[in-house]
Amino acid sequence: MALKTSRKNNYPEWYQSVIAEADMAENSSSPGCMVVKPWGYGIWERIRDVFDEKIKSADHENCYFPMFIPLSFFQKEAEHVDGFAKEMAVVTHSRLSMKDGKLVPDSKLEEPLVVRPTSEAIIADSFSKWVKSYRDLPVLVNQWANVVRWEMRPRLFLRTREFLWQEGHTAHASAKEAEEETKWALLAYRELCEDTLAMPVLMGRKPEHEKFPGAVDTYCVEAMMQDGKALQAGTSHFLGQNFAKSANISFINKQNQSEYAYTSSWGVSTRLIGGVIMTHADDEGMVVPPRIAPYQVVIVPVIKKPEDEDAVMSYIKNIQNDLLNKMPFGEKIRIKLDKRDKNSVDKFWEWTRKGAPIILEIGKRDADGNNVMLKTRIKLGKPDGKIVLSREDLENSIVERLQDIQKEMFETAKKRLISNIRTDIKTPEDFEAYFKQSNEWIEDGKEGKVAFVRGKWCADPQTEEILKAMKITIRCIPFDQPNDEGVCLLTGKPATLDVIYARSY
Amino acid sequence: MALKTSRKNNYPEWYQSVIAEADMAENSSSPGCMVVKPWGYGIWERIRDVFDEKIKSADHENCYFPMFIPLSFFQKEAEHVDGFAKEMAVVTHSRLSMKDGKLVPDSKLEEPLVVRPTSEAIIADSFSKWVKSYRDLPVLVNQWANVVRWEMRPRLFLRTREFLWQEGHTAHASAKEAEEETKWALLAYRELCEDTLAMPVLMGRKPEHEKFPGAVDTYCVEAMMQDGKALQAGTSHFLGQNFAKSANISFINKQNQSEYAYTSSWGVSTRLIGGVIMTHADDEGMVVPPRIAPYQVVIVPVIKKPEDEDAVMSYIKNIQNDLLNKMPFGEKIRIKLDKRDKNSVDKFWEWTRKGAPIILEIGKRDADGNNVMLKTRIKLGKPDGKIVLSREDLENSIVERLQDIQKEMFETAKKRLISNIRTDIKTPEDFEAYFKQSNEWIEDGKEGKVAFVRGKWCADPQTEEILKAMKITIRCIPFDQPNDEGVCLLTGKPATLDVIYARSY
Repeated sequence: MALKTSRKNNYPEWYQSVIAEADMAENSSSPGCMVVKPWGYGIWERIRDVFDEKIKSADHENCYFPMFIPLSFFQKEAEHVDGFAKEMAVVTHSRLSMKDGKLVPDSKLEEPLVVRPTSEAIIADSFSKWVKSYRDLPVLVNQWANVVRWEMRPRLFLRTREFLWQEGHTAHASAKEAEEETKWALLAYRELCEDTLAMPVLMGRKPEHEKFPGAVDTYCVEAMMQDGKALQAGTSHFLGQNFAKSANISFINKQNQSEYAYTSSWGVSTRLIGGVIMTHADDEGMVVPPRIAPYQVVIVPVIKKPEDEDAVMSYIKNIQNDLLNKMPFGEKIRIKLDKRDKNSVDKFWEWTRKGAPIILEIGKRDADGNNVMLKTRIKLGKPDGKIVLSREDLENSIVERLQDIQKEMFETAKKRLISNIRTDIKTPEDFEAYFKQSNEWIEDGKEGKVAFVRGKWCADPQTEEILKAMKITIRCIPFDQPNDEGVCLLTGKPATLDVIYARSY
Repeated sequence: MALKTSRKNNYPEWYQSVIAEADMAENSSSPGCMVVKPWGYGIWERIRDVFDEKIKSADHENCYFPMFIPLSFFQKEAEHVDGFAKEMAVVTHSRLSMKDGKLVPDSKLEEPLVVRPTSEAIIADSFSKWVKSYRDLPVLVNQWANVVRWEMRPRLFLRTREFLWQEGHTAHASAKEAEEETKWALLAYRELCEDTLAMPVLMGRKPEHEKFPGAVDTYCVEAMMQDGKALQAGTSHFLGQNFAKSANISFINKQNQSEYAYTSSWGVSTRLIGGVIMTHADDEGMVVPPRIAPYQVVIVPVIKKPEDEDAVMSYIKNIQNDLLNKMPFGEKIRIKLDKRDKNSVDKFWEWTRKGAPIILEIGKRDADGNNVMLKTRIKLGKPDGKIVLSREDLENSIVERLQDIQKEMFETAKKRLISNIRTDIKTPEDFEAYFKQSNEWIEDGKEGKVAFVRGKWCADPQTEEILKAMKITIRCIPFDQPNDEGVCLLTGKPATLDVIYARSY
C-alpha cells in the first residue's frame, strides 16, 4: 500500500503525494495559495500552542497589527536597503463595480496598500507611539498572522504566496538586551524544532548577503531534509537601531538623554510542516511526531459480524476511559475513535498514510481476551510493528510509548544529520566535484551522495557570485568555530571561517 | 479617577476613552485598521478558546483557506444577488518598482484578487472538490481568520476595515440537516454571548431585506448596548442550495442520484469585544467578565518601606501558591502579580480602568495579619467594594467570587435588556413619537428614553424605505410569535408578525 512514488524514484513528486495522501493541504483556485486541510491545520495548531506557551512564559504578549501597510512605509526601505524584496501583493482599489456587465476594480486608493510580507515597518510605527521612556521598555510582542510574498514557483507548505506564521517583535533599551532577546528566540526555535517536531537543526549566523534586509545580524536554525537539502526552519534578527531610526522609536534613558531603541524580530511559519514531512515521512506516507499529532492514538474497531458490534464498542469505551487522563508530554492525550462506515483495513491504511503515531485495532477476539492490537507507525512492516498487548499493559505503557516514538524519531533524524555533514572536503576542486552530483534520497543508516559540507569560507564578496552559479548556499556560520586556517572552498584563498554549505529549499 | 467623559455626557466619546484607558486597541497608521493591543487581544484569545472548544466538541474541524479570491468568483454573485457588497479591497499588482525615485505598483495581475470579505465563495469551491458522495457529507469546517470590508466610518472593534473572526462553513445531504446546523450555531452563539461574555441576547430570524446576500434564511443574536442601541453579535445562515449550485457542490445520494448539497455558514468577530465594552464598562473604565479576563485576579503589592519588601513578597508568593490550582469555570485561574516599579495607587487605578475583575492589595499589615484587601471591580465605590479577607477565606472563596461576578454581570445586563423592550407601542403615531427621541445612556435600574420596541410589522416591501428614513432597523423576528393581530407600526396596515425594532450599531 506504498505511495505511488517513492523518495528514491522521484523525491519532489513523493513530497506532493505524501501531502495529498495524508490529506494535509491542497492547491487552491486562488493562484499560488493553499488550502490547509484539517490534518495539516491540526498539526499547525499543535505547533502554535506549544510555541505560544513558550513565548508567553518569557513575558511576551500577543497583539494584532494591520495587514495593510501604506506604500510610503516601504519607500525609505527601498531607497536604502540592499535586497529589498519587491514581490508583494498591492491593494490599489477599494470597490468592485459593474461596467458593461463585467465586474471591475473601482475607487482607486490615494495611497496603495501593501499586504504585509512581514510587519517590521508597521509595528515599528506603533512602537514609536508606545515608547517614551526607558520605563516603557522592553516591549515584547508577538502576533500569529497570515503574510504574503509573491512566490513565482509555489510549493505546498514550503513556498506559498500566503502562509501562516508567528512574528515576534521587541524593543529594548540596550543593544546587549536586544541581542540577548535575538539569541533567546533562536534557542526557542531550536527547542521547538528538536523537542516538538523531532527535527534536529544546526544553529548559526547568516552571512552578510543572506541577512534579512535591515538587520545587523540574522541568526537561523537549519534542518536537513531526506534529500540532503537544507531547509531554513526559523530566523531571528537583531535589527540594531535601524528600524528604530527610520520609525523614530526613541526614548529618554536613565541618564535623561534621548536615545533610539534597539529592536529584534523573529519568525517561524507553516513551512515547518514541510520540514516535518521531509524529515519524517516515508514511502508509505506521512509520519507525525506524537507531540504534534492531531490524534496520537487512533482506535479502529474491527467488526466482522454485526452481532459483535455491541461487545466491541463497549470494550473500546473501556479502553478509552483507561487512557482518558493520560498525559504524554504533560498534555492531555489525543485519541480518535474512527467510527466511520468503512472497512477496518482501509481505515488502517488511511491513518497510516496520515502518519498517526499509534493505531489500536480492536475486535471481538481482543475484547474477549482483554487485549488490543497495537500498531506503531514508525515500525510499520517491522517485526515489532504490530503487537498484542493486554489492556493493562496498554494503559500502563501508552505515555511511555508515545514519548519513546518521539525520541526515536528525533534520534533517527539526528543520526542522518550528523552523518551527512562532510568535514573532509578541503579544496575547491573536491568541493566542486562533490556538488556536481545531484541531491537524492538518503536511505537511513547510509550516507547520501550530497548533503551538507562544513568547510572554509573567505567571506570575499565575489563568493556570492560563485555560489549563485553553483546553485549552492551558505546556510549558516556555526557559533562553534575552530581556531584553524585553511583555504576557501569557493576561491582557494586563505580562510579561517567555518560555514555550512548546502543546496536548499 | 473617573474617565474624562461619562456615558451620560457623550456616549460615543466615552466608548473611545474606555478603549484608550484600558489600552485595548488603537487606530493605526493603516487607514481604518486597528492595532489590537495585549489586553484587547487577550480578551479575544479567551473568546476564541472557549468557542473553539465548543465547535470542535460538535465535530467541526479547523482549516485555513486563501484570503485572496479571484475576481471572477464574484461575477456571478454580483449579477444575481441583490445587496451584493461592493466595498472590498482589491489586489491588482504583485510587485513594487522604483520609478523616478518613487515606489509604484508594478506587474499587473491578469485577474484582480479580492481580499476576502467572507469566504463562502472560495470555500464552496473547495467543497465542490471534496464532496462526491453522500458518504463525504456532512463537511463541517471552521476557520479563524482576518477579513476585510471597506468601511467608510471605522470605529474600533465595531467597524474596522480589517477584523478578526471565526467563520464556520458546512455542507449537508439534506435541507433539514443544514437547517439544524444553522440553528445549532445560533444556539452556540447565544451560549457564547450569555455564558461567556455575560451579554444577554435576543434570538430570531432576519427580515428579507436584512438577510445575508445568497442566504435562504439568516438567524442572529442581538444584544442591547447601554445606550439602547442594538448590536448584531453573531449571524448564522442557511444557504439552501444557492452556493452549492453556483460552485457545483453536488453528490451522489443514497438513491444513486446526483443532487446539490445544502450549505450553512456562521460567524462572530472581534466586534463582540465592542459589545462587551458597551454592555459592561462604566464611567470608571472597562469591566471584563471573569470568564474572558486575561487576568482574573491582579495582585498589587503595597510596599511603604523598602525593608518590608521581602516579607510582603514572600507572603504574596504564598497567596499565589494557595490560588494556583483553583479552577473557576473549569479552567486554570489567571493571576497576575504586578511587580512594576510604580506606586500601588496608580496600579490600582490602571487595573480598574482595564476592568480586572478582582484586585488584591497586599502590604505589610496584611502579611502580618494573614489577610488580604480584596477589591471587586463591579462593586467599585460601594461599601462591599473593598473588604479585608483572611488568607484562608480568600483561598476558599476565590472560585465562587469569580463565578458570582460573572453571574451578577449577566443579571445586571439581562435586567437592562428585559426592562427596555417596549411592548406597549401599538400605533405608528406612538412609534414615531418614541423614536423621535435620541438614544442616550440608560442608567441601571432605570428605564431608558429609547431602546427596543417589540411590535407588529406587515412585511410590506415599502416598510424598508420607511425604516431607512427613520434610521430604524428591524433587528430580528423572534422565534416565539403570539397568535394575535394588530397594526404595523410602520404602515398602520393589519399585521400579525412581531419584530424587534431598534437603532443599531
